[in-house]
Amino acid sequence: MEIPKGTVVTERVTSRALEGNLPGDPHVRDLHVYLPPGYDEGSERYPVAWCLSGFTGRGRMLLHDNPWSPGIADRMDALLADGRVKPMILALPDCFTHVGGSQYINSPAVGRYEDHLIEELVPLVDARFRTLAAPEHRGVIGKSSGGYGALIQGMRHPEIFGALVCHSGDLLFEYCYKRDFGPALRAIRAGGGLAPWLATFRASPQKRHADIAALNIIAMAAAYSPNVGAPSPFCDLPFDLETGAIDENVWKRWLQWDPLYLVDRYAGSLRKLRLLFLDCGREDEFYLELGARCFVKRLRELGIPHEYEEFGDGHMNISYRMDVSLSKLSRALAR
Amino acid sequence: MEIPKGTVVTERVTSRALEGNLPGDPHVRDLHVYLPPGYDEGSERYPVAWCLSGFTGRGRMLLHDNPWSPGIADRMDALLADGRVKPMILALPDCFTHVGGSQYINSPAVGRYEDHLIEELVPLVDARFRTLAAPEHRGVIGKSSGGYGALIQGMRHPEIFGALVCHSGDLLFEYCYKRDFGPALRAIRAGGGLAPWLATFRASPQKRHADIAALNIIAMAAAYSPNVGAPSPFCDLPFDLETGAIDENVWKRWLQWDPLYLVDRYAGSLRKLRLLFLDCGREDEFYLELGARCFVKRLRELGIPHEYEEFGDGHMNISYRMDVSLSKLSRALAR
Amino acid sequence: MEIPKGTVVTERVTSRALEGNLPGDPHVRDLHVYLPPGYDEGSERYPVAWCLSGFTGRGRMLLHDNPWSPGIADRMDALLADGRVKPMILALPDCFTHVGGSQYINSPAVGRYEDHLIEELVPLVDARFRTLAAPEHRGVIGKSSGGYGALIQGMRHPEIFGALVCHSGDLLFEYCYKRDFGPALRAIRAGGGLAPWLATFRASPQKRHADIAALNIIAMAAAYSPNVGAPSPFCDLPFDLETGAIDENVWKRWLQWDPLYLVDRYAGSLRKLRLLFLDCGREDEFYLELGARCFVKRLRELGIPHEYEEFGDGHMNISYRMDVSLSKLSRALAR
Amino acid sequence: MEIPKGTVVTERVTSRALEGNLPGDPHVRDLHVYLPPGYDEGSERYPVAWCLSGFTGRGRMLLHDNPWSPGIADRMDALLADGRVKPMILALPDCFTHVGGSQYINSPAVGRYEDHLIEELVPLVDARFRTLAAPEHRGVIGKSSGGYGALIQGMRHPEIFGALVCHSGDLLFEYCYKRDFGPALRAIRAGGGLAPWLATFRASPQKRHADIAALNIIAMAAAYSPNVGAPSPFCDLPFDLETGAIDENVWKRWLQWDPLYLVDRYAGSLRKLRLLFLDCGREDEFYLELGARCFVKRLRELGIPHEYEEFGDGHMNISYRMDVSLSKLSRALAR
Repeated sequence: MEIPKGTVVTERVTSRALEGNLPGDPHVRDLHVYLPPGYDEGSERYPVAWCLSGFTGRGRMLLHDNPWSPGIADRMDALLADGRVKPMILALPDCFTHVGGSQYINSPAVGRYEDHLIEELVPLVDARFRTLAAPEHRGVIGKSSGGYGALIQGMRHPEIFGALVCHSGDLLFEYCYKRDFGPALRAIRAGGGLAPWLATFRASPQKRHADIAALNIIAMAAAYSPNVGAPSPFCDLPFDLETGAIDENVWKRWLQWDPLYLVDRYAGSLRKLRLLFLDCGREDEFYLELGARCFVKRLRELGIPHEYEEFGDGHMNISYRMDVSLSKLSRALAR
Repeated sequence: MEIPKGTVVTERVTSRALEGNLPGDPHVRDLHVYLPPGYDEGSERYPVAWCLSGFTGRGRMLLHDNPWSPGIADRMDALLADGRVKPMILALPDCFTHVGGSQYINSPAVGRYEDHLIEELVPLVDARFRTLAAPEHRGVIGKSSGGYGALIQGMRHPEIFGALVCHSGDLLFEYCYKRDFGPALRAIRAGGGLAPWLATFRASPQKRHADIAALNIIAMAAAYSPNVGAPSPFCDLPFDLETGAIDENVWKRWLQWDPLYLVDRYAGSLRKLRLLFLDCGREDEFYLELGARCFVKRLRELGIPHEYEEFGDGHMNISYRMDVSLSKLSRALAR
Repeated sequence: MEIPKGTVVTERVTSRALEGNLPGDPHVRDLHVYLPPGYDEGSERYPVAWCLSGFTGRGRMLLHDNPWSPGIADRMDALLADGRVKPMILALPDCFTHVGGSQYINSPAVGRYEDHLIEELVPLVDARFRTLAAPEHRGVIGKSSGGYGALIQGMRHPEIFGALVCHSGDLLFEYCYKRDFGPALRAIRAGGGLAPWLATFRASPQKRHADIAALNIIAMAAAYSPNVGAPSPFCDLPFDLETGAIDENVWKRWLQWDPLYLVDRYAGSLRKLRLLFLDCGREDEFYLELGARCFVKRLRELGIPHEYEEFGDGHMNISYRMDVSLSKLSRALAR
Repeated sequence: MEIPKGTVVTERVTSRALEGNLPGDPHVRDLHVYLPPGYDEGSERYPVAWCLSGFTGRGRMLLHDNPWSPGIADRMDALLADGRVKPMILALPDCFTHVGGSQYINSPAVGRYEDHLIEELVPLVDARFRTLAAPEHRGVIGKSSGGYGALIQGMRHPEIFGALVCHSGDLLFEYCYKRDFGPALRAIRAGGGLAPWLATFRASPQKRHADIAALNIIAMAAAYSPNVGAPSPFCDLPFDLETGAIDENVWKRWLQWDPLYLVDRYAGSLRKLRLLFLDCGREDEFYLELGARCFVKRLRELGIPHEYEEFGDGHMNISYRMDVSLSKLSRALAR
């Protein structure tokens, strides 16, 4: 006995926002859209959940499965069949870049990914699909850098998103990024500096764990401390490449992108959300449960409604947590 | 400027060979088939490469990509556009089981996966697609347990496969399996025995590295030393679960499935192959380069033509090696 | 043919400075003293090198050897026989505490270890042995926390020490300590808080790597941010034990003990040294080579003479570096 | 209030058995002997426990301590003061070799360490100290390779040893050694072969974990499969250095030194022991608890009295287990 299956359609999007981006990343992108079972037969309108993938990922990877863990489309089908989720459209954008990601924000060193998402993709999906095109029926969800993106865009765009889910999102930069400054410094120095290191990284078929850690720091610099006058990758590192000494000015620019820094300013947006759900593993390799706790503590102090869960796992392979979050999200967004 | 794209079609196959298998795994399976660009417009017939996935995998996962590493379909498209590969059909079967895999052989404890592949899937693809339905145009390729499957089936079925590629395949069981007996014993004992351990494993959303190592040993026992009289998973372990003492009788049953044991018997089949290509990483975590060297040494002694390469990497994330193997394979199979 | 051997004598010292220390650590300590070959037969006076052991260590452990790596006494004998070192007395104090160490400073939470060293042990050795009792003939050397101790005491006591050697010393606290805040927080919380965690740690016969990391952070808090009003271990942690949020006031207290913060104030002392030698491994697990580079950079800017070497190794088992440093130190201190 | 302290004296022993050994290791060795408190004042005779150190160790290292773990002399003092142990003499021989150890057996590739121990050291200690010079008052104890030595010598020399303690001893070679064949092969090949690898190893000040694993395999080959016709280190490896293929003839020579192989032959000796105590950690990195279980199972089958304990730890830093074993041993050996 088969369960009803939704459909995944792929929209090829030509982006004005990304056109001419400084690093020369593609401005034509595939947007994958999951339509719930019965979409084609009916005329109903649906809420939309924007699903943001993590660092080094893009929307398409959310569809990957393994025999023990369904992709996001199959997961939705199963949760719908179980009645644990209400029908929604899922939109899976591609915001990958030459440094592994964009953090879903605008940066002159990387590209205008916030604009791409908010001004281009959201209207496009509302135009092409039968969506409930209002913030109370539009949510954003993601994990890791995608959880960061969900949090940032949920805070900045209450006119767009009425619910947000942040799984193991980048928070408390002091912990989650700083611990990789040393390893990144060593890798980049060993590679002869930023640009040569990046060139070697790109040319190598195997991307090793230590390289991804270094790339992550570079990507964050490109996102949070861009410097268009600098050579590629057009950013200032928050530390001296010889001594490791923290460049406090650059670091301050990073901290201004820490959701913990932004929470007070955007308290009004957060208060409007129908759902503000965060979770994190208690053994998160980047200690993101600490950032989540800090954030949640501030939410409590500000009297902002939210839900928070911790679970007994780390940072990787935790898409099973979407069983919880998609359920909450679909209920929050339902008509 | 886009490159021409092939198509992936999915055949839902109802298997007689797998029906009623002892562990109750599904006998309806998805077979994914890659058709090269231009397939629909033309009337040409194509060689077929049967692509066998590794342990815990199934055909669909070969289509997964990440931004730095294309899935097998996109890889073919790119290699074709470059002229490095000649057009072929790729068939991606699903031989996953409740213990993580089947090794692509028949086992009463697991199912008749060899029969499924050879007697059901190969004819089905030849019937439904415009293939060159002859061994000289049919190849088999895989990595790890898939490389093992390619080697075994290539040896056992010269009437089916005329070329074979084995990437980092299970060989020299003494090294690749025995080192996990200790860890497996500890995990299974801590889990209360085989069946309880398996139940807990299945129920856990997170499959940890150590658990996969234990599962691997169980799956090999189900494949190489089945015991239908035993309780699920219907097999004899090659060691005593309390003392670790090797059960030499069971171990001998395993060794009879080591390609190193079979090479002499199947020398005739191997000699007929248009391509016999093996490779392995010099840092393979299972020391499979040693098995490959042993096998290649015996091929040399037997005067069996072959090609062998070692590369500077480990066992994981080495699909880039298919740039080399698909190229060789397509030339070997081409009309 | 045997080489001449020095003698190690043990002085049992009753310390006024340590008597009544808050945690109740012993105030009677063994001081091991290496006397060079020929000491007993002659009447010569010798320079003294004060050798400070690392975290969790005490003087006696510097005498440990293994077949490939001599203890400090045998090392001296061998270097003397080779002519690579000039005769010196070595003094090996015990500044171990209930939290694993004292950093060789005064702290109300730990004890007056600076006073113990400077006011008690130095005069005692000068009284009991034929030393050249003047700063130009007295040096201080150590590794890791011992390197820190050497640096701190060398800066603070130019009237005592005329030469200093810092192997892989604690520097740039931002890197070397902060990375362990997350792991320490998790360990301490899992242990039920500071005091229960410490009790469990002490009771456990096996001190695991992760426990030592947590203990290290506690010891640094006891050294740098003591709080005698708090329950044992009488200190303020630089982070919130639930959220990990940095307590900037406490952290500032720590930074005031970072030699990088102190270097300007003590530039005059450092300039007087006959030898200021630092080295560090380029793969130091605590990234101490970065602290060393920062420190050395500031020395250069201040025009303070010094020597600096980096070597291709990590933090552990690097006593072979004393072949270099004892040689330099003995020449600097020789009459 | 101080507890009574024993004395450690060092005997310099010139060995006939070791003189002219093939690798040219020293035949003059230090034997450290612990004499219990009151030895000098009285005229009592004492039992003797021969304490065999592990691979890469020698007797002197058993005296090493750290603040949380006393050396063997201080441990004895404390246990005596507590009444948990009865007075004994401890003898700590040095059987270190150019390949890291001797397994305490005779091998033409290494030297006659069994003869050295049994024919030279035991009589020497009985001659120079007030021992109870009879097997019922003489025991042997060790850990790891020292535990192996204790087991082997206890089996082979019932006329010498009346009690034996084996902590985490080398047993079930299939598990404890074979798993390092792959890593050893890679290391030795990368080093250009056996002799060049050894030369580089010796010249390097840092002995890394992976190097010790390779050295261990070489040392076992020198002990179990010597070949005096081969170049240094004068042994046959149990695997082909290119393919890893097991050389079954060599491997059989190894197995003949596995206590599991010898237990039947020496059942008579074992049955005579006043104490046969084994223990092992359940997380032993070499899976030695499996060997211990196999051995103990065979003891049970043969009706040989013994005691066995498992504890919740690994292979390293478990000298605290001697609190248990020294207590048992001293009672077994007491008059």
